[in-house]
Amino acid sequence: MTDQPLVIFTPSGKRGRFPVGTPVLEAARKLGVDLDSVCGGRGICSKCQVQPSFGEFSKHGVVSREDALSDWNAVEERYKSKRGMKPGRRLGCQAKVEGDIIIDVPAESQVHKQVVRKSADTREIVMEPCTRLFYIEVEEPDMHEPSGDLERLCAALETQWQITGAEADYSILATLQTRLRKGDWKVTVAVYQAAEGATPRILHVWPGFHEGGLFGLAVDLGSTTIAAHLCDLQTGRVIASSGIMNPQIRFGEDLMSRVSYSMMNAGGSEEMTLAVRTGMATLVETLAKEAEIDPALIFEAVFVANPVMHHLLLGIDPVELGQAPFALATANALTLAARNLDLPFHPAAQVYILPCIAGHVGADAAAVALSEAPHKSEDLVLMVDVGTNAEILLGNTTKVLACSSPTGPAFEGAQISSGQRAAPGAIERVRIDPVTKEPRFRVIGSEKWSDEDGFIEDAPPISGICGSGIIEAIAEMRMAGIVDPGGLIGSAEQVGTSRLIPAGRTHEYVLWEGDADTPRITVTNGDVRAIQLAKAALYAGARLLMDQMGVDDVDRVVLAGAFGAHISPKHAMVLGMIPDCDVDKVTSAGNAAGSGARIALLNRSARREVEGIVRRIQKVETAVEPRFQEHFVAASNIPHASDPYARLQAEVTLPKVSFNAGGSGEDGGGRRRRRTRA
Amino acid sequence: MTDQPLVIFTPSGKRGRFPVGTPVLEAARKLGVDLDSVCGGRGICSKCQVQPSFGEFSKHGVVSREDALSDWNAVEERYKSKRGMKPGRRLGCQAKVEGDIIIDVPAESQVHKQVVRKSADTREIVMEPCTRLFYIEVEEPDMHEPSGDLERLCAALETQWQITGAEADYSILATLQTRLRKGDWKVTVAVYQAAEGATPRILHVWPGFHEGGLFGLAVDLGSTTIAAHLCDLQTGRVIASSGIMNPQIRFGEDLMSRVSYSMMNAGGSEEMTLAVRTGMATLVETLAKEAEIDPALIFEAVFVANPVMHHLLLGIDPVELGQAPFALATANALTLAARNLDLPFHPAAQVYILPCIAGHVGADAAAVALSEAPHKSEDLVLMVDVGTNAEILLGNTTKVLACSSPTGPAFEGAQISSGQRAAPGAIERVRIDPVTKEPRFRVIGSEKWSDEDGFIEDAPPISGICGSGIIEAIAEMRMAGIVDPGGLIGSAEQVGTSRLIPAGRTHEYVLWEGDADTPRITVTNGDVRAIQLAKAALYAGARLLMDQMGVDDVDRVVLAGAFGAHISPKHAMVLGMIPDCDVDKVTSAGNAAGSGARIALLNRSARREVEGIVRRIQKVETAVEPRFQEHFVAASNIPHASDPYARLQAEVTLPKVSFNAGGSGEDGGGRRRRRTRA
Repeated sequence: MTDQPLVIFTPSGKRGRFPVGTPVLEAARKLGVDLDSVCGGRGICSKCQVQPSFGEFSKHGVVSREDALSDWNAVEERYKSKRGMKPGRRLGCQAKVEGDIIIDVPAESQVHKQVVRKSADTREIVMEPCTRLFYIEVEEPDMHEPSGDLERLCAALETQWQITGAEADYSILATLQTRLRKGDWKVTVAVYQAAEGATPRILHVWPGFHEGGLFGLAVDLGSTTIAAHLCDLQTGRVIASSGIMNPQIRFGEDLMSRVSYSMMNAGGSEEMTLAVRTGMATLVETLAKEAEIDPALIFEAVFVANPVMHHLLLGIDPVELGQAPFALATANALTLAARNLDLPFHPAAQVYILPCIAGHVGADAAAVALSEAPHKSEDLVLMVDVGTNAEILLGNTTKVLACSSPTGPAFEGAQISSGQRAAPGAIERVRIDPVTKEPRFRVIGSEKWSDEDGFIEDAPPISGICGSGIIEAIAEMRMAGIVDPGGLIGSAEQVGTSRLIPAGRTHEYVLWEGDADTPRITVTNGDVRAIQLAKAALYAGARLLMDQMGVDDVDRVVLAGAFGAHISPKHAMVLGMIPDCDVDKVTSAGNAAGSGARIALLNRSARREVEGIVRRIQKVETAVEPRFQEHFVAASNIPHASDPYARLQAEVTLPKVSFNAGGSGEDGGGRRRRRTRA
Repeated sequence: MTDQPLVIFTPSGKRGRFPVGTPVLEAARKLGVDLDSVCGGRGICSKCQVQPSFGEFSKHGVVSREDALSDWNAVEERYKSKRGMKPGRRLGCQAKVEGDIIIDVPAESQVHKQVVRKSADTREIVMEPCTRLFYIEVEEPDMHEPSGDLERLCAALETQWQITGAEADYSILATLQTRLRKGDWKVTVAVYQAAEGATPRILHVWPGFHEGGLFGLAVDLGSTTIAAHLCDLQTGRVIASSGIMNPQIRFGEDLMSRVSYSMMNAGGSEEMTLAVRTGMATLVETLAKEAEIDPALIFEAVFVANPVMHHLLLGIDPVELGQAPFALATANALTLAARNLDLPFHPAAQVYILPCIAGHVGADAAAVALSEAPHKSEDLVLMVDVGTNAEILLGNTTKVLACSSPTGPAFEGAQISSGQRAAPGAIERVRIDPVTKEPRFRVIGSEKWSDEDGFIEDAPPISGICGSGIIEAIAEMRMAGIVDPGGLIGSAEQVGTSRLIPAGRTHEYVLWEGDADTPRITVTNGDVRAIQLAKAALYAGARLLMDQMGVDDVDRVVLAGAFGAHISPKHAMVLGMIPDCDVDKVTSAGNAAGSGARIALLNRSARREVEGIVRRIQKVETAVEPRFQEHFVAASNIPHASDPYARLQAEVTLPKVSFNAGGSGEDGGGRRRRRTRA
């Protein structure tokens, strides 16, 4: 018999001896075990649920008997009967230590629980949100010791939760007194703290114990689409995700056309700001409806965006971003009140916007860096966030470089004759038989290929071709000898298939004949040229960073962006979108910018981390770099005019065809004027 | 010949030796001499003007020769020809030391200049405003070292003014880039810093050097009137003062009737909040027009108010203040954005609201304490801020007590039959001949007494009687034997004057007969009763604090409040408004609450000071104190039922008359139900 029972917590392994009768929660706190509690041990919140283990544990050297914890008390019984608890669970604040015991803290009972970022990804986010809930009991007013209700509430936060010096958001003042009285001086408060040691800010007060949740929004504000995840700030779970087209598209498809719109139209910038904020309001409404929550329960949002969208969201005219020296109004991370941006959240909600890296490399690239951590990679990794503007990062533990490249919206299906955004009915995968030149494809909304039985019945009406579809189509056309390295589509006679039909002075390839319900879908030579321009810009940016780094090869390539997730690495390489590399070293990070936003939403330390990464990243400005133009011209060929793409050629055959009558005619992609920024 | 010239600054007496060619401003900075500069030594702002003295100064042991400063340079010449300078003045940043020299820093060139609080007062305020202007030169953007314009602006603040870690108010972002370029990278910024060491906040950016001023508003938000001083935050000068009736008066004349209005009417509190904020907007407009400034140049405001007005301004329902335990929603000082209160200032303007002392003793009393500093008084001083609600402070260096007393609006002319607010045409001074019982008086708007030649021609039409007028009238009636100690007015027969006329069961005294243009003005027995109730409440509060302090006498009395400034101490004592005291020890502090607001506006350290004072003040709640009721009853007599007012009687004679038929009839003031709060 020892003096005091031994308590061992798993998975941490922390152990200590405590007097009989010590509540498990108290033992956990004394040992620094990560066990959550919102109500502070009052048996209300159930966050402190633990799982005792009974039996002989030679590994730990203890025998844990069934009577090692106190019997169920009335509080626990009431909680269990009202809310239910998993078998074997106890409330850590109620169960008391009576003998040696092994206690497991399940993942969901940890304050700094880890949440899986998304199903396609094994990375986890450690929960450390800025905003947390605290249940407190406030002293009643005493006429003879006059003090404000707010001051007594702050005193309770200090004595019951060691939160000192809290300030009240203005919005809580009007209802503070009625809520305190309604809750009979017991309230739950939402406290926001930007960083450890920062002034705590009371954002809301609920009478009694609040169980309605606490939410945050991670937003990836792209030129073409705005995508957002609505997250539970207590559990880290994504409770709804949605995206809308950026309503600014009516002012210009790509960023530079929006900058031009602002230059040419008085009040144009304000119009675009209004459009994006209205779009955000719609998106928030959709998400809140889907998740069945009140948008007033959204207390935080994190935004990532390219510099132009960043400025337009903030109400800053992006005109300076359209001309050298591409000066940002502000580059650093920003924390501001959501109401400044007219966001329909809680009136005290806070917004965090990640820092921009440079005038063309925005907070979206910073978010990719946070999510994919090139600065922690031993390999030299090239990260490409493919969108209307491509952000490119190259680096490893020694150094990280960044640039952006104006790819235009072709990769997203815009400027393509049959192009459309990725939606049901869009062709997203394409294969062409190198011998017969016959295509087969899949459309979004069906698992079947077009040559499988039942495809027509299963698939939604075929309406167009999306970004990943056009990339695969052209890459397949190149591999089937339908398109030559210069980007010219051959004629029916040259290639030997009736799928090629004349279109003015060029030819187009019929991917889908169309029928009564659906249009004919072809890949025109104009489509090939649009993709050539886009991919050449992307390649040239990557290559410029490699020059700067002094390398000719990269160890691996990560394709980011919602669209990047759908690009087939092999086809991307056949097109020459990215430098030559072993195909199996090309991976997708999915929407890495969106993941970065989510990490910054759920973990405040990650905000400091990304600010530090961005300070250390070296920026390369492509717009004024003469070699960018050289790389661009050479990269207009498919895959490239001078680089043999040896590692790619080891896996695929690229037919040596040429359909240009003069050998270097005016239709060659390489000569075309590149898209410029200013 | 010494190595380096000796520079002596007056009035500080600081001295040091500097190399030939050192600018005077630089020498001043190195010696810690308080010499202002907004432009940082660029010859633009002229804040650093100094006055060199030439000749032999045996006191300092130096001979200062005419050539001891460098000749006028082009910058100085240009400034002088453009703006003019007082004779003998030099710009400290341009004039360079070339020999031993005595340099005087005139008051207006000191950063911490002192401003005289107001003409009637010799107290001075040391300038230390939260918001100051800084002229800076910002580095231009460099594409190869990308950074935001804001970050370079902050860097300039740091290198040129040692202001580190400044944050931008959201409102500056939209126009930052255009302003920087318009000013050719030279701008003036308004920086707000709540306290030394607090995060500096950039509130505004002007292209080039800003000379349009920087203003703040000190507001005394009373139940009956809202008074405000518009101050220049650079010089401390009051550039306009104005007051309006509190538009909430339509919801109830005194505080408790407004609390009742809120209790009885759904949305009543919101209506009253809207009314006071609308009133504030009108007042700001008036002041800005009078001073010919743009209200968007108002960057700060300080409010003092009683607890009910404090809550209504903040949008808090005052219902809890109407019932025990009189709990304030918040008692501490508040700093918040002016836009939260819908104030029509600069969008980034900040508001500071002084702390409340208790549920009935508000920020106005705190402001009186800041201004009159009872905690620094060796004498035991009683301070009374006379208004609709009277705040009372009693203390000295050892201890300060505070309470409030519900006097009602009678002292401000309300609830008086011919009462009106203090405006032209109101009778403000009254004298009654103790033998003939004939009155003479003065009205606001004329210097003449009513029995002087030309009074009728000089005075505005007589329209009523204001608060100080009714007090003097009743006190004079008491001294002339027209009113007895119980408050009953005698009949014409009893007193022997036809100026007394019957009015129902009582009598009234005709002060002014009226004519074709003006009404008859009388003092009714109802008026006497209203003043009795008010003064008894005031006295009882003061007496309660004296009990608490364990004293029967006070050394001196300070009457505060705009109205307190007009009360004749002798008449106040004849009425028994205040405890017996040597009449020459009763002084007026004018609008001490308003002065406190101005001090807090112009000196940020004073904010910390008042917060400290309030924490130490001991609060006494009159509403639940049984002795308050006893004191009230005894104080209903004029001057008092039991206290002989010996020190007063040494100076004035109080006739021993009695007009009550039964000796203690039902009309006696002493028995009347006192005004209650709940």
